[in-house]
Amino acid sequence: MSVPFVSVHRVRLDEVDAAGVVYFAHFFSWCHEAMAAMLASVDGGYAALVMTRRLGLPAVHAEADFAAPVRFGDEVRISTVVERIGTSSCALRFELERPSDGDHIATLRHIVALTDLNEMRSRPLPDDVLRILARYS
Amino acid sequence: MSVPFVSVHRVRLDEVDAAGVVYFAHFFSWCHEAMAAMLASVDGGYAALVMTRRLGLPAVHAEADFAAPVRFGDEVRISTVVERIGTSSCALRFELERPSDGDHIATLRHIVALTDLNEMRSRPLPDDVLRILARYS
Amino acid sequence: MSVPFVSVHRVRLDEVDAAGVVYFAHFFSWCHEAMAAMLASVDGGYAALVMTRRLGLPAVHAEADFAAPVRFGDEVRISTVVERIGTSSCALRFELERPSDGDHIATLRHIVALTDLNEMRSRPLPDDVLRILARYS
Amino acid sequence: MSVPFVSVHRVRLDEVDAAGVVYFAHFFSWCHEAMAAMLASVDGGYAALVMTRRLGLPAVHAEADFAAPVRFGDEVRISTVVERIGTSSCALRFELERPSDGDHIATLRHIVALTDLNEMRSRPLPDDVLRILARYS
Repeated sequence: MSVPFVSVHRVRLDEVDAAGVVYFAHFFSWCHEAMAAMLASVDGGYAALVMTRRLGLPAVHAEADFAAPVRFGDEVRISTVVERIGTSSCALRFELERPSDGDHIATLRHIVALTDLNEMRSRPLPDDVLRILARYS
Repeated sequence: MSVPFVSVHRVRLDEVDAAGVVYFAHFFSWCHEAMAAMLASVDGGYAALVMTRRLGLPAVHAEADFAAPVRFGDEVRISTVVERIGTSSCALRFELERPSDGDHIATLRHIVALTDLNEMRSRPLPDDVLRILARYS
Repeated sequence: MSVPFVSVHRVRLDEVDAAGVVYFAHFFSWCHEAMAAMLASVDGGYAALVMTRRLGLPAVHAEADFAAPVRFGDEVRISTVVERIGTSSCALRFELERPSDGDHIATLRHIVALTDLNEMRSRPLPDDVLRILARYS
Repeated sequence: MSVPFVSVHRVRLDEVDAAGVVYFAHFFSWCHEAMAAMLASVDGGYAALVMTRRLGLPAVHAEADFAAPVRFGDEVRISTVVERIGTSSCALRFELERPSDGDHIATLRHIVALTDLNEMRSRPLPDDVLRILARYS
């Protein structure tokens, strides 16, 4: 049974739009940040993965089902699990909840592909990334 | 046969991320903007729909398949078609291409639900919105 | 002698632009977030100040001097001091440093005015806000 | 007498924050976009200046005085003038107005420095950039 990686995002003033609720595109950024936090312990850290090793994990697919509106100041709990690990890609699922009332907020899924950023072509997932993915799968 | 609503987005400096390509969450914003442009001719305009009539079209589902990276200065052509019209919701499909090389960039799908922003509950799509949706379905 | 309020921002992937460095407008957001964190202990919290009490602190003036470029993964230390407290406004200075190399990154100054968001007019700073401002002035 | 470069920005849904008005940091982005539009006719275009010639114009100073709140759907007219041209830097002033009611919205000033993005050091402004700056100074 998978144990999720848990992180928290507190909604900022500027993430709310003219309709008074969080603009939907920000949910995708939060989940990207959750993945980055999950991968913080790769060799050299996640920023070095991109900047020094020039390996990125761009999304090839992303989807979201939105269940409840979120507002300024809300704390959002993000539980990340790895649903599938392939040779060069993996599928992540993110469950978003609001601890203050227990409401389910949204479910997102990202499929990301390990990419050599210099050549912009896919590559096998390196061992240190695989080890972390396995821990949450 | 459906005739799409066509709009263009030119990639801004700040939409590109540290990996050198457009950050994936921006594609969802571009498609929201395409929908807003398509709906510009509702009674009073799209901004008045939200601000005066207090009716919004928040996404209940959004998904994207990314086919090619996009860079600063690229012009992206967005073709919006209405795939399905329900009582209070509709499904939109967005095909993104780069005219400079003809590359297919991404396909996105949004399901949006007409929502009374004061009461945060769904409502039937009003006639002026329906008329525009029908034109591109 | 003033003791600053200290907070930390870790640069995200999407805050870097096509030139490879953090896009300049994000520094203003980081300093707004630093102010919000400093004011977290107002009665009910900062989000309730805006959402429930309908009092905001919009900037009437903002300026920045940029000294060094910042990159993905950099940790930025923000020291906030209150330079001046008026009846309805106050002046904040933010010194940004990068602890990893000790570099001075930028100095920002915001003048914010306590504003009744329903009537969009300025109001005297409430006591609970004043108490926090005095602590860092 | 200087003739300004004039551009227009229509406020997007997601540029408004939880206080119901445009988040202040976006004004700086709009003015950056105004500068980019002014420089669209440099040799190869502004994006090629950054991506191919690897020359950028990062801000070394930016400031704003905010006069009136802006809301979703507002059209903002930006008049850009070049206040000073140095060897490697120039000072730009941006006057923002709302044509619908004639209100003055904000005045911004950016000082930008021509920078070799590979070496991250300043360089003299190239002739094609200087020609455009002179036109609006």
